[in-house]
Parts: sequence; structure tokens; C-alpha cells
Amino acid sequence: MRSAAAHRDESQAPDGEDALSALVLLLSEDLAACNRIIVARLGSRVELIPRLAEHILAAGGKRLRPLLTLAAARLCGASASAARHIELAACVELIHTATLLHDDVVDVSQRRRGLASANAVFGASASVLVGDFLFARAFQVMVEAGSLRVLQILADATATIVSGELVQLISQNDLDTPDSRYFDVVNGKTAALFAAACRIGAVAAGCEDGEVALADYGANLGISFQLVDDALDYAADEQKLGKTVGDDFREGKVTLPALIAYRRGAAWERRFWERTIGRSEQRDGDLEQARELLRAHDAIAATLDQAGVFADHARRALRVFPDTPLCRRLQDVAGYTVTRSR
Amino acid sequence: MRSAAAHRDESQAPDGEDALSALVLLLSEDLAACNRIIVARLGSRVELIPRLAEHILAAGGKRLRPLLTLAAARLCGASASAARHIELAACVELIHTATLLHDDVVDVSQRRRGLASANAVFGASASVLVGDFLFARAFQVMVEAGSLRVLQILADATATIVSGELVQLISQNDLDTPDSRYFDVVNGKTAALFAAACRIGAVAAGCEDGEVALADYGANLGISFQLVDDALDYAADEQKLGKTVGDDFREGKVTLPALIAYRRGAAWERRFWERTIGRSEQRDGDLEQARELLRAHDAIAATLDQAGVFADHARRALRVFPDTPLCRRLQDVAGYTVTRSR
Repeated sequence: MRSAAAHRDESQAPDGEDALSALVLLLSEDLAACNRIIVARLGSRVELIPRLAEHILAAGGKRLRPLLTLAAARLCGASASAARHIELAACVELIHTATLLHDDVVDVSQRRRGLASANAVFGASASVLVGDFLFARAFQVMVEAGSLRVLQILADATATIVSGELVQLISQNDLDTPDSRYFDVVNGKTAALFAAACRIGAVAAGCEDGEVALADYGANLGISFQLVDDALDYAADEQKLGKTVGDDFREGKVTLPALIAYRRGAAWERRFWERTIGRSEQRDGDLEQARELLRAHDAIAATLDQAGVFADHARRALRVFPDTPLCRRLQDVAGYTVTRSR
Repeated sequence: MRSAAAHRDESQAPDGEDALSALVLLLSEDLAACNRIIVARLGSRVELIPRLAEHILAAGGKRLRPLLTLAAARLCGASASAARHIELAACVELIHTATLLHDDVVDVSQRRRGLASANAVFGASASVLVGDFLFARAFQVMVEAGSLRVLQILADATATIVSGELVQLISQNDLDTPDSRYFDVVNGKTAALFAAACRIGAVAAGCEDGEVALADYGANLGISFQLVDDALDYAADEQKLGKTVGDDFREGKVTLPALIAYRRGAAWERRFWERTIGRSEQRDGDLEQARELLRAHDAIAATLDQAGVFADHARRALRVFPDTPLCRRLQDVAGYTVTRSR
């Protein structure tokens, strides 16, 4: 967490990572409680379960999804003494972690968050099974929380996430992927859980009116976030962001920046994309060439422009809530998803 | 289904597969409705989901687990017009199918039920994701059924199944596996879902009193069933049962027959097991040698004797129910699990 955010004048909109840091600061106690619950819920007689799960959890994701549940619940009036939204935020992170473990098996990824992936360290078998365990554990915690509505939202979200991952798998190497199918993938892999995370915050606070607005916020934030992620996969400064560049390219994943460059490209450029992404025949220098073509066709800027539109939608969805510091921080986070890349 | 069972005098206890056929016959309408629900619930815009799931479902398992739910519900007085126990029986089969898909990825299995496994036909990535989808879909159906008690039982069972599979993974090649750990695996991979399947039948019928007895029946039946399965993996007549022999041996899985032969064996025999299972160094003729050693030490008979003890426990658990044809068929099924191997 950056301490700068703590001293910032609240009326001044922070940008970049500061927006997220400011939200973390506002919710730091809830988030700490949520982290404690996650660790406690990983307990098992099978020692490999906490060991493998902590490998990925300790790698330090941004905890963005549980933060959304916590923020949504507070925005809807959940009290500091209420434990329910904190338990549910932990469920969201357990489900997210389960999907990451299975993703790394599906993509045969060796790295995750700058470290060796669980898949690389513990093997695919253990990653599949511990992922399953985290799914099951999340549902156990939800059952304890006793809300069929929450169970419905997160069971639906899980089915949507997995469907999105399957569409991505099927669309691999397919440069004729239409935008609608690309956005199905984005909705599945990111927006569905963002929307569900926000929505169950409202349910936990017993605020039916807030559900629709918060789901709308979460879904648009999620799309914006994923578009930026797809842009960063080609455009990031590796040194600065600790992010590897070119994973999607190497895996033959068809994302918006590549689709734009492919469609705008001359015949020889399309042949380049057909070889490198369409047939996964790659050689030294191809990634640099791909990045050059994206620059030439403003594909990154076009992707980020679209991300900006969804971020605006997300911000507008929050207008039904009073203009509190928390509400403003959530609006800033929508900006963060875009500005983190510029 | 074998029609012989239909003409059998009900007072005469059937043996072998007839017991299962007789149960299927008694519940044929419920089972047909359950199969229709399973197919309907696999529907998705992502065409790969029903295609892959039907590959494994159509391979024709015995539907033993959903049968248990249906039978338990009827034993507890569920009416023919009630749909709830049938929906829940479908959930049990969805969860079971999900675990089979993931098992085949974990074991890198090429065959399942005598056919190429989904893992071999569609690849590990699709198997992982469609397995996840089936888990999610099962939970969606349970949420619709509206019982937190059922959700709790099946979420707990899922966590136990996965823990058991993880213990099995960790214990691979370990000939010092104590019996207690072996039975943890058996409980996880089989008994937990058998018990849960029976238990939710009672819950669906609104019969709290039946829950404990039926869970007891299911757990003991499941252990008996798995012990027989582990014996058959060494002793089956491949021609007769359509089952491959030696899978556990080849995969270095430590099961009771091998543990018994290892512990009872002379020094040279223990070295044989340490090489073949302990270090997975196998060559032509090793499986035949292993089977010979099991015969020499009565390891199959000892395993089946234990299976018989659990089958007796299962039968006794049903004594609290009136002596109806259905109750007798369930008791016969406990016999089936043992006699199918002799």
C-alpha cells in the first residue's frame, strides 16, 4: 500500500494505483479480517491444501474482487460489526483463486504474479484438485452464511466464468473471432465475478435496491479491467509493472488489440498474424514485430478507448448512491483500471 | 438392464448384477426422468460442454449414485409425483461426472469405461473446464431446489472427495501407507458421495429420522464397493467384466490388496513391490508376477472379506426401515458390491 494516498485531499481524484490504495485504506480493517478468514478456511488435515493455496494467495494479488464485496456492502450500509459481508468477500477470493489454479493448468503457465505458478511448483494434478477444494470450500462457507440468493449469484457466476474460459479455449488461434465472442470471453473470465462480487455485497447488507446498480458497476468495471489487461499484455513496461509481456501472443490467445491490428493490417501483416497467432508458428523477434504493428494501427489506444467507455459506464452506475468518500473511491477505481496502463 | 430380474420371485435374494438390475427396475421411471434432467441441464451456448459431458455420460456408468438418491427418497416416502428427489439425483450424477473428468486429468488416463477418456479425446484443458462447469451446474440446480441442508451435504461431500483424491495423490508410490490413510482415500473417493447421495434422498423426502441410517448405509456400501473395485483391479477377468486390469498397479496407486501382499511378503517380494510400485519401475511380466503374489498371500480374499464386513454393516443400517421390496433390493445391492467379483 502506498502511504501517499493517506495524506491526499479527499476532494482530489487520485489516479493510477493511488485509487486502489485509497480504497484499500478505507476498508483496511474489513480487508484484514477477510484475509484472516481466507487463511483460516484453508485449514485441512491434508497439509498440501493450505501450502499450495497460500503459494498463490501469498503471491499478493490485489484482492480487488473481495474489496469490491466489502465496498459494496459498506456502500449499502453494512455495519463494521457485521461479519457476513467479510465471510462472503472471502468466498469471492476463494473462487477467484480456484479459477486461477485451473487457468494455469489450462494454459500450462509456468509463471503467475511474477513467481513460479502452482502448476510449475506442485504440478497440474495437485493444482486441479486444490482448485476443486477451494470451489467446494467457498460453497461450504456460503452455505454457512445461509443465503440462497448469494449461493445463486455465485453458482451462476462460476458457471459463466467457466463457460467464458471454454469459449476462450475454443477461440484460440482463431483470428476470425467476432467481437461478440471476444466480449463473451471477457465477460466470463473477468466481468461475471466482478459483478457477482459487487452484487453479493448489496445482498449481504440487505439492500435489494443496490443490487442492480452494483452489479452494473461491477460488470462494466470488469470489462474495462480486462480490456486494459489485454492491452498491457502487449504494451506494458515489464520493468515498471512487474508484468510479463506477450503471454497472450505466445499462447495464441485472440484479444482485442491483436484483432484490431489484424483487421486494419495490410495483406502481409495479416499473413504475419495468421502465422504467429493463427498457426502458433513463432520465432525470435515476432513479439517485437507484433508490438510494432499494434503501434502502427493505434490498436492499444483503440483498446484503451473502449476500456474508458466501460469505465465511464461503471462510474455512472454509482450515481444512485450518495456522494460519500467510499462512493468516490469506487468511482476512482474505475479510472484506475484505465490509467494504470498510460 | 437384464429382464431376468423382472421375473424373479421377490422373496428370493438375487445376487451379482441382478441385485442392481432389480433396483433399476423398481425405480425405472424415476431413473429415466433423472437421465432426462441430466441431459437438459447440460445445455449451453458453448456446444463443447454437452458434447464432452455426454461423451462420458453416454459411456454408460451404472448410475449407482443417483439410484441411491432415488431409492433413499422413495424409502422415506417420497411420492412418484414429487420432482425434487429426481433433480437432486441428477445433481449427484453431475458432481460424480465432474470428479471423473478431473480424475482422468490427474491420472492422465486414456481409457474410461472401456472407451477413450474425455481427457484423451478432448484434451486435459477442456476436461478441467467442463468438470468445473458440471460442479457449478450441480450447485445451480441445488440452489433452485432451495434446500440449504442439501447444499451443505453436497458441498461437504465435494470437499471430502477432493481431499481424498489429494491424499491418494500424495500417497502414490508409498508402500508405508497406513490402513487409516488408505481408508481416508476410500472414504473420499467413494464413500463420501455414496453417503451424501443416500442422505439427500431422505432430506428430499422430508424425513429427518431416515438421514442417519441412510448415510450409514451409503458410507458402508461405498467402502465395500471401493474395496471390491481395488480387488478387481488385480483380479478381474478382463473378458468378462469389460474392465481393464492393473491400472492401479501401473499408476503406482497403493491399494489394500497390494499393501497386504507387501506386508505379508518375504524380503525379495518386498523388493519387487518397492521397485514396481515404490519407484514405478515396471517391465513386462510384472503385473502377472504381482497377481501371483496376491494369490500366494490370499490378498484378494482378505480384501473381499473386509468388503463383506462393510456390506454387512450397510445391510444392518437399513433395519430401521420396514421390510419392503425396495428395502430388500437395497440390501441386495450391498451384496452385489461383493459378489460381482467372485
